[in-house]
Formats: sequence, structure tokens, C-alpha cells
Amino acid sequence: MSISFTPELLTPSEQDIASFEALFRHSSAIGATPAGGLHRLAASVEDGAVRDLFATWLTERGFEVRVDAVGNMFGLITFNPDAPYVLCGSHLDSQPSAGRFDGVYGVLAGAVAVASLARQLRERGEVPPCNLAVVNWTNEEGARFQPSLIGSSVFTGDLALQDAWACRDGDGISLKQALQQIGYLGAGRVELEIAGYVEIHVEQGDGLERDGLAIGVVRDTWAALKQRIRFIGEQNHTGPTPMVARKDALLAAAHAITAVRAEADLHGPQLHSSVGRLEIYPNSPNVVPSRVTLHVEYRSPDTELLAAAGDRLDASLKAVAADTSTSYEVESHALRESTHMHHGFAELAYSVGQQLGLPIGNSVTVSGHDAISLSRHYPVCLLFIPSSNGVSHNEAEFTSDQDMRNGLRMLTALLYRACSTPNAYR
Amino acid sequence: MSISFTPELLTPSEQDIASFEALFRHSSAIGATPAGGLHRLAASVEDGAVRDLFATWLTERGFEVRVDAVGNMFGLITFNPDAPYVLCGSHLDSQPSAGRFDGVYGVLAGAVAVASLARQLRERGEVPPCNLAVVNWTNEEGARFQPSLIGSSVFTGDLALQDAWACRDGDGISLKQALQQIGYLGAGRVELEIAGYVEIHVEQGDGLERDGLAIGVVRDTWAALKQRIRFIGEQNHTGPTPMVARKDALLAAAHAITAVRAEADLHGPQLHSSVGRLEIYPNSPNVVPSRVTLHVEYRSPDTELLAAAGDRLDASLKAVAADTSTSYEVESHALRESTHMHHGFAELAYSVGQQLGLPIGNSVTVSGHDAISLSRHYPVCLLFIPSSNGVSHNEAEFTSDQDMRNGLRMLTALLYRACSTPNAYR
Repeated sequence: MSISFTPELLTPSEQDIASFEALFRHSSAIGATPAGGLHRLAASVEDGAVRDLFATWLTERGFEVRVDAVGNMFGLITFNPDAPYVLCGSHLDSQPSAGRFDGVYGVLAGAVAVASLARQLRERGEVPPCNLAVVNWTNEEGARFQPSLIGSSVFTGDLALQDAWACRDGDGISLKQALQQIGYLGAGRVELEIAGYVEIHVEQGDGLERDGLAIGVVRDTWAALKQRIRFIGEQNHTGPTPMVARKDALLAAAHAITAVRAEADLHGPQLHSSVGRLEIYPNSPNVVPSRVTLHVEYRSPDTELLAAAGDRLDASLKAVAADTSTSYEVESHALRESTHMHHGFAELAYSVGQQLGLPIGNSVTVSGHDAISLSRHYPVCLLFIPSSNGVSHNEAEFTSDQDMRNGLRMLTALLYRACSTPNAYR
Repeated sequence: MSISFTPELLTPSEQDIASFEALFRHSSAIGATPAGGLHRLAASVEDGAVRDLFATWLTERGFEVRVDAVGNMFGLITFNPDAPYVLCGSHLDSQPSAGRFDGVYGVLAGAVAVASLARQLRERGEVPPCNLAVVNWTNEEGARFQPSLIGSSVFTGDLALQDAWACRDGDGISLKQALQQIGYLGAGRVELEIAGYVEIHVEQGDGLERDGLAIGVVRDTWAALKQRIRFIGEQNHTGPTPMVARKDALLAAAHAITAVRAEADLHGPQLHSSVGRLEIYPNSPNVVPSRVTLHVEYRSPDTELLAAAGDRLDASLKAVAADTSTSYEVESHALRESTHMHHGFAELAYSVGQQLGLPIGNSVTVSGHDAISLSRHYPVCLLFIPSSNGVSHNEAEFTSDQDMRNGLRMLTALLYRACSTPNAYR
């Protein structure tokens, strides 16, 4: 026998919504670009400034703020020190000249949702079975420091702290040094028992907008194959050196870039590819380049297709190296398999959205998110709100105030259900 | 009626040769790389240090040292303030992780040759009809600041001082700022009446070594076509953005690089090509690149072939832009025609070499040199000494002590003839 009932939901007040909008405006000004975007690379001066803003905001509202050794910032609302936490969050860092919504929205909406629930629960004299917390993960973007998802991967134990610290930016500054410089190199781990993790993020695709939905519940993730490939040639004068004697690592890289794309072109929408970054040495107009590192990505809903594409790329690279008298090394090779997100948590989100009267549907994520790192370890729910025209990693990235308010209502209500009735999804 | 006679030649003493070798060793230590090369970019701290060494050396030997507004350093030996100067020199800057001979040899051999002649002429009580001077031209290499040949081009008036000052390195530092930082931003021009200019340089090819020659007299230069081409795409997320919607400026650049090489492959040894430098924005692994600038070079003995190759490249770029949904701009386009060097000066050099008993022959230069800038304005003689295996712009660049000594004898004797009997070549 099952009993059907409509559970009570808590949602943010008008004051909470105004508080979110002020916080978001303040964040958008830190690292703002003239075209209305955001340029706030991980552990930069601007990242330090928005972290200060975030920490102050949390402290003023009674959160306990803790920073771990990789710079992840946690804002804790502890009702019961022995209870586990329902955590929400995302990241405050951005890509170069990117949008002001990506990641930032999830952290600030999370902070306001938790603050709102803490106040309402206190007013109601209600002590839920789970505590609440919000997190800002370090270097989600992987723009200044590679790989991406560093903070959440250290938290889960998938990446060793020492390896994370040793990552260097293009100027040779390590992540550890950079965190120290902005004052966010914490000590040790922040040990939290995690009951569940909720991340709300802009979609970075146009599915919700196209379908007229306010909220997407991510059910599946695409697989990703990320490789760093280095061609090694020989430095020489671009003038007198006979063409037959050249070992041009940039020519090899150019052939590799076109080969990566040719592979994607074989598979239509089932395979996305890119080479977004090159490191070229010596990168001087009059010198044959001797070393070029390519950052190659393939993404697909089909993990097997990705692996096969990776094998074919390897054959192409061999041919390119032979044709250009260069050699190559695979410096790193990381295959992230496609996954299904936690079923019960997604179902709970779906029912909360329906109860709130929000147009809600299922989503797939092609992008990586901290939520995906965490989903291998904890029950995780990843929610999307619309991205205008699907534009992302671009100053023109846009999500309307109404869509952000809808997301904040959704997040607050879901966090309330998750912390007050954890059996609803586990 | 012609009278045949053997003119007297002055050559360096053993002490002069030892002095050159000490100076060269000292220079090689400033910006030395572990593999025995040199990394001494224009207007860097290392360039400042070698300039200090050079200025001190000259001053101690009675040269008047003057620095112009673009940082060119002149060491003057003035016998008669109303007489013109025979100038010699080259450049002390290097490519990244390059050799210690390229350019440096010509400046230091020039300084020692002029000092030797000044001393010998004084001892003989001889006042020649021309004065003597040595020069270190700023930023010949074009590695840190583009274009190359900046110092000599400002001296001749082919490049405006303001344009030279405004050149910026990859970190946005202008040449003017960089010169100021190392203390080599002089005031105004150094006005010199130039009777002739002599530059001695390592060959950067293997012609002399192959033919068993000690000295090459450059008779002809290759033409060069240098272009900076910028592809403009659209920044977007490398994950969810559908492949058909991408405007990937790096993919366009890759196709352009392979097209540049394909053109060269059509013409065998008559056409050299390269793309040695790219500037990529934002150059982040997860962002579709929106702007990529390519530094493209074609070189050929045949100016018409170069121009035709340039036209065909333009057609290729149009096709690449259409195929990749990008656009492109030609940011700069500079065609340097092939030239014949000054006939009389080359003949004089030839006869001096023969009189010294040095194996001497004709050379062609594929590389650009300050001498080529100056040859459009003054009688210029460009001499080569051998480069082992033709290797250049590489730490393995090498020229033997014996070859350097032969060059110093040749240069000293030629400068003596040029300043004492200017009618011998004019």
C-alpha cells in the first residue's frame, strides 16, 4: 500500500531573491569585461576578491566558513554536529573572457538557498536530520591550470593533493603558489559526511529554451576523452634550412588538428571534438617550432565510440609524425565514461519541480561539472536552467532574471526536501 | 692604362685575436643555456647585461659610445669630425634557446677589428679619409618583438620610431618600455654620414663548409614575403556546442598552415615556407578558439614566384574561412624583393680575401640581415663564415675558432681598405 501526499515545500522569500540578485551583481563586477562578461581565472587576484566577497557574505549570515588545502571553500550550517550534510555549490572561477553565469550562479544561488532555509528552519524551530552546506570548488574550469575539476577531484580523493598543487599555469606558477598569493591555501581536508550533493548550473546548450522548460534534471552525462599530445621536432632557421631537412612540430600539430576534426565529421552529432589549446616552443616567427603540445578532446554519449576514435587518432598521429619527420608523446590520456545520474535524486527533483509548477524536463550534460566528479561517490542531483541560444564560455552567455529566480526556488525547495526527508531519494 | 699593384693590408695582432676570444667567451656566458646555446631576447635583462659589457669594452678602448632612441649602440672612432664613417656591426640579441654566434660574432669581431685598426693607424701616424664605427642593432631577430630588423630599419628611416616603440611582446610590454627598463632608451638619432657598411655573419647554411671555403661574399639575397594573418571565429564551449555551430579559429589556422606548406611542396628548393608563431585566444582547453594570428613566411630567389604564391595563399585562406565559418584579416603583408649586393664592395672583399690567402667564394643569403636593410641606402658588403652543418637558431649552432679568426682577419683587412681607400669600391 502506498500513501500519496503532497509534502510541504519551503521556498525563498522576496527578500532572499533580492539578496541573491544583489550578490550576483556584486560578483559580476569582480573581473567584469567591457562587453559584460567575466574574466576571473582560478586563483587570480579577481578570484581572490570574489572569494573574499563570498566568505564575508556567508560569515555575516552565520555560516561557518572553512577552506581546505586545495582552496575549496565550504560554508556550513550545522544543526546537529553528528548529522551528515546535504551540500550544494559549483565554482566561482571562469574561462577567459567568458560569461558571468557559468558556475557562479550555482554557488550564489546555493548560498542564498541555504541561508533562507537556515532562517526558516530556525523560525519554525525545526531541526532537520541533515545539515546544510554550500561549496565553491577550486579551478573547475581548467583554463589557467589543467586539468579541470581540480577542487572537487581532490575532495573525492580522485586526484592527489600533491598533484593538484603541482599544476602550473602558462607562466610556471603552481596552483599552490597561486592559492597562497590570494590567501586561500587552507590546511588539510574539510571532513564532511555527505548525504547528497546538489548543483544547479546554466545549461550551456539550447535544449531547455527550445522546449520551453524552466528546469532540466540531468539524467545522463556524455563520455569525454581528453589527451595532451606533444610533437617534438627540431629548432632551426625558417629561412635557409632546406624544406626537406625540417622537423616542424607546428606543421605536425596542424595535421593532427585537422585529423581530430575529420574523425568527428565521420560521426555527426554523436561525436564532438576540439583542440582548444596549443603550447608552442619557441613560438618565434623565424624559428622552426621544436615542441608543440595539443590539448585534444573528444566527447560522445557512447563511451565505446570514444575509445575507438582515440585509437584511430593514435594511428593518424603516427602517420603525421612519419610525414613530418617529428615524433610524438601522449603526455596524458583521461577517459571519463558516460554515466547515469542518481535515479532517486532525479525523481525527487522532478516531483519538486512539478509541485512548484515549474516546466521541468530531463537533460543530458555534454560538459563536465563538479557534480559529475562527485556522482561517483555520493548521491548527486544536477539541475540546469536555460542558457540563451546555448551560448557559453563567451561574454554573450545569458540567463534571464526570471530563469535565475525559478532556479533559486527549485534549489531551495529541493534542498529542504533533501535535508528534511533524506529517505525521499536514498 | 691600368696599373696593377698590391695594396698594403692591416690585419689583427695575436693580442687582438686573444682579445676577441675573451670578449666572445664573456658574451657567450650572458644568457647561456645549459646545452651551450644562448637565450638573449631583445631588450631583456640579458640583452642589457651584454650591452653593458659591450659599452664598457668600447669605452676602455677609446671609442665614443652613443645610443639612439631605438637602442642602437654605436662605438665611434673619429679621426676627422668632417669625414664619413665606414660602419660595421650586427646584433647582440638572439632567438629563444639559440646559438651564441648568430649576430654576436659580427658585433664583437667588428669592435675588435676597429679597435685594432685605430691602434695601428695611430701608431703609424696615418689619418684615413674615413672614420670607423661599430654598431649593435636593436632587435634584429624579431623573436620578442615583431618585425625583425627594427633597429637598422629605424636608422635607415624605413620604419618610423613611433611604430618601433609601439611594438609589444607577448606580455604586452612595448619595445620603448623594455629599452627604458634596461637603460638603453637613448635620445634622438645618431647622425652619421655613412661611406659604407660591412657585416660579417655566420652563414646559417652549409654552403661554405661543403665547398671548403673560409669566407663567403654575399652577392645576392632571396626575396621574402612575410604576412600576419588573423582568423576570427567565435568563443564557445568545446563540449555542448554542436559541431555545425562552431567557428573554430584554430581549426582554420591548422588548415592554413598545411596550405602554406603544400604551396612550398609544389616548388622544390625554389620556395621555402614556414609558420613559426601563432597567437591563440583564449587558448583554454575547454573553449573554442576565437582568434588566432599566424606569422607566415615564404622565401624564394624569385620575387615573382613569391608574389604568385602569396596570391594562391590568399585564395586558400578564403576557402579555409568559408569551410570553417570563420573570417580572416591580413594584419600585415611585407614583400622584401630579392636584391644584388653592392658590386664594387663585393669585388673589393674578394680581392682582399685572395690577398690574405683565404679560400673565398660567392654566397647567397636566404636569411634577412641588417646589412640587407642598409643595402637599399648605402654601399654594403655582407660576408659569411662557415656554420657547422648549416645549423642555426638552435643551441647546436657552431663555428670553429679557426673560422672566427679567419673572419676577423678578413674583416680587419677589408675595413682598412674601405676607410683608407674608399674609391676602391665606390
